[in-house]
Amino acid sequence: MDSVALSLEQVYTLAFESLKTQGLSVNQADAIAETVMQAERDECAAHGLFRIPFYVKALGNRNIDPAAEPALSRLAPGILRMDAKFGFAPYALKSGMPLLIEAARTQGIAALCVNNAYHIASLWPEVEAIASADLVGFAFTNALPVVAPAGGTKPLFGTNPMAFAWPRKGTQPLVFDQASSVVSLGDVRIHKRDGKPIPKGWAIGPNGRATTDPVAALDGALLPFGGHKGSSIALMVELLAGALVGDLFSYEVAAREPGTRAPCGGELLIAIDPGICAGTQDRSSQDAHAEELFAKVLEQDGVRLPSERRYLARERTMIDGVTVPTKLFETLQSYTRTS
Amino acid sequence: MDSVALSLEQVYTLAFESLKTQGLSVNQADAIAETVMQAERDECAAHGLFRIPFYVKALGNRNIDPAAEPALSRLAPGILRMDAKFGFAPYALKSGMPLLIEAARTQGIAALCVNNAYHIASLWPEVEAIASADLVGFAFTNALPVVAPAGGTKPLFGTNPMAFAWPRKGTQPLVFDQASSVVSLGDVRIHKRDGKPIPKGWAIGPNGRATTDPVAALDGALLPFGGHKGSSIALMVELLAGALVGDLFSYEVAAREPGTRAPCGGELLIAIDPGICAGTQDRSSQDAHAEELFAKVLEQDGVRLPSERRYLARERTMIDGVTVPTKLFETLQSYTRTS
Repeated sequence: MDSVALSLEQVYTLAFESLKTQGLSVNQADAIAETVMQAERDECAAHGLFRIPFYVKALGNRNIDPAAEPALSRLAPGILRMDAKFGFAPYALKSGMPLLIEAARTQGIAALCVNNAYHIASLWPEVEAIASADLVGFAFTNALPVVAPAGGTKPLFGTNPMAFAWPRKGTQPLVFDQASSVVSLGDVRIHKRDGKPIPKGWAIGPNGRATTDPVAALDGALLPFGGHKGSSIALMVELLAGALVGDLFSYEVAAREPGTRAPCGGELLIAIDPGICAGTQDRSSQDAHAEELFAKVLEQDGVRLPSERRYLARERTMIDGVTVPTKLFETLQSYTRTS
Repeated sequence: MDSVALSLEQVYTLAFESLKTQGLSVNQADAIAETVMQAERDECAAHGLFRIPFYVKALGNRNIDPAAEPALSRLAPGILRMDAKFGFAPYALKSGMPLLIEAARTQGIAALCVNNAYHIASLWPEVEAIASADLVGFAFTNALPVVAPAGGTKPLFGTNPMAFAWPRKGTQPLVFDQASSVVSLGDVRIHKRDGKPIPKGWAIGPNGRATTDPVAALDGALLPFGGHKGSSIALMVELLAGALVGDLFSYEVAAREPGTRAPCGGELLIAIDPGICAGTQDRSSQDAHAEELFAKVLEQDGVRLPSERRYLARERTMIDGVTVPTKLFETLQSYTRTS
């Protein structure tokens, strides 16, 4: 048997105990374990337990504080700043979320500027948390520089995800979380591992020309999605998560990062109160209006709403739990024993 | 001679007199003429004087109020609402801009929700206005439903532009304004006029299949840029400019619109004070930081910053003026004589 069945509670506990035993504080380990459990729950294996060894390896970077306690400040009525103090992002985000939500409800719109956070998780957990408070959410963050600007030949931008969430009454929010590149670096690595060519349009080689060779692609650069339009979005994300919040651009992250592939930098969250924007206390007609649009989208055969796959997985795993490769399970178990 | 040379002042005057004589109020005509002059100045002919006959034709729609005076209200400290009262967008945007700017400076982040506006201009003038006040700007608006969701077969979304601006010291702001579709409907129409096939990936025919025939494309639907990622952005824009601000989705705009191709609906503007977000009164280091990124982008051969083409045109036309097709010039002159 090459996989182990776990309940979501067991996923959380395994992640939490691994991280705590390896040196993270209870608060840091708890917040990361929660994002790891959420990823396993939604069958996003790449951000699930698979990611724990990355966190452990990242601790080899002496700049990371495994027991960092983030510090919140209010820069203006609508702007909060959360200094993650060189710990990991999940705890900083979790700590800032209640205040962001409260600020959006009173101001109508508010932003949380996160600094000095090591971020190797997805963005959808934070925008889903915003939407769970019946608010519209955005998130933007930089990464390591692996994407060439449209028309260019060298990596400069991160895969720079942008996430968005719209709250829905009685069901999961509409959420998307998408990289500014056509695909992730992980997708190219899987093709390399399997000895398969990559489709045209994913990447360029070190000579700056289009390539279908995953090895050349990893030495070269990923391409932004949708040509210059995706490139503009990657540039926007650099500015929002970098200069705007007073943090690093992806290429600066790389200069500071010692090869553990855990990028340190900023993140921008924006939350908007939809009831205020529509000038109504009663959100039900606004909610019904959005549902009409979603129904129109789903009327067309072959069209899905973003995150549908994740939510279907969630329904299954909340009851049936998940399976984890035995080898990974054993690695994590060894983390819980050594210190 | 098939073109007429005009200074930018003459462009403004011709646009203003045309619109005023055809029945628009001084305020409505002035704001539109300004966007038309800006488009000619930046050599965006499709939104320049060429657009005046569209405005005049739109007046045939009895729902449009050619003398509308927009009404501003504050819904929360960070949320302003501008009811355009079924006039055109430019005057409503111009009227709301000073208050949006002031709200962003005091709150750190603010939004302007525009309702009941007939919008057939670009979005870049409004985000450029935000950036000219040293703020970061976003704009989102719906349009007529001509774009199929990714994987779908029928038009549902508008071309739904999203615009972004970053202020730069001593030079024009970085601005992009891009449709959620691969190309505009106008691009397809030009191919039809010239009897040329359209590239693969632009559109689908009425049977829902990929087409290179512009006639089939105009009966079918445009495709979102970058597949499902552009489709997610189109969906986000529908929500922001529709349900969020309490206005119409693109397919609802179509149901209300009597064939004049001037869509009526909402727009969302967001403005953020970058100095506040970076926790600094002195914007110079933040400004210099962004300039380092722009320099890195431009280091690569073949890469341009968005809007570079417009700004180069602007430098020329501010001195040399523009040329306008004689036939269009004569049409507009006739507008200034008849009433």
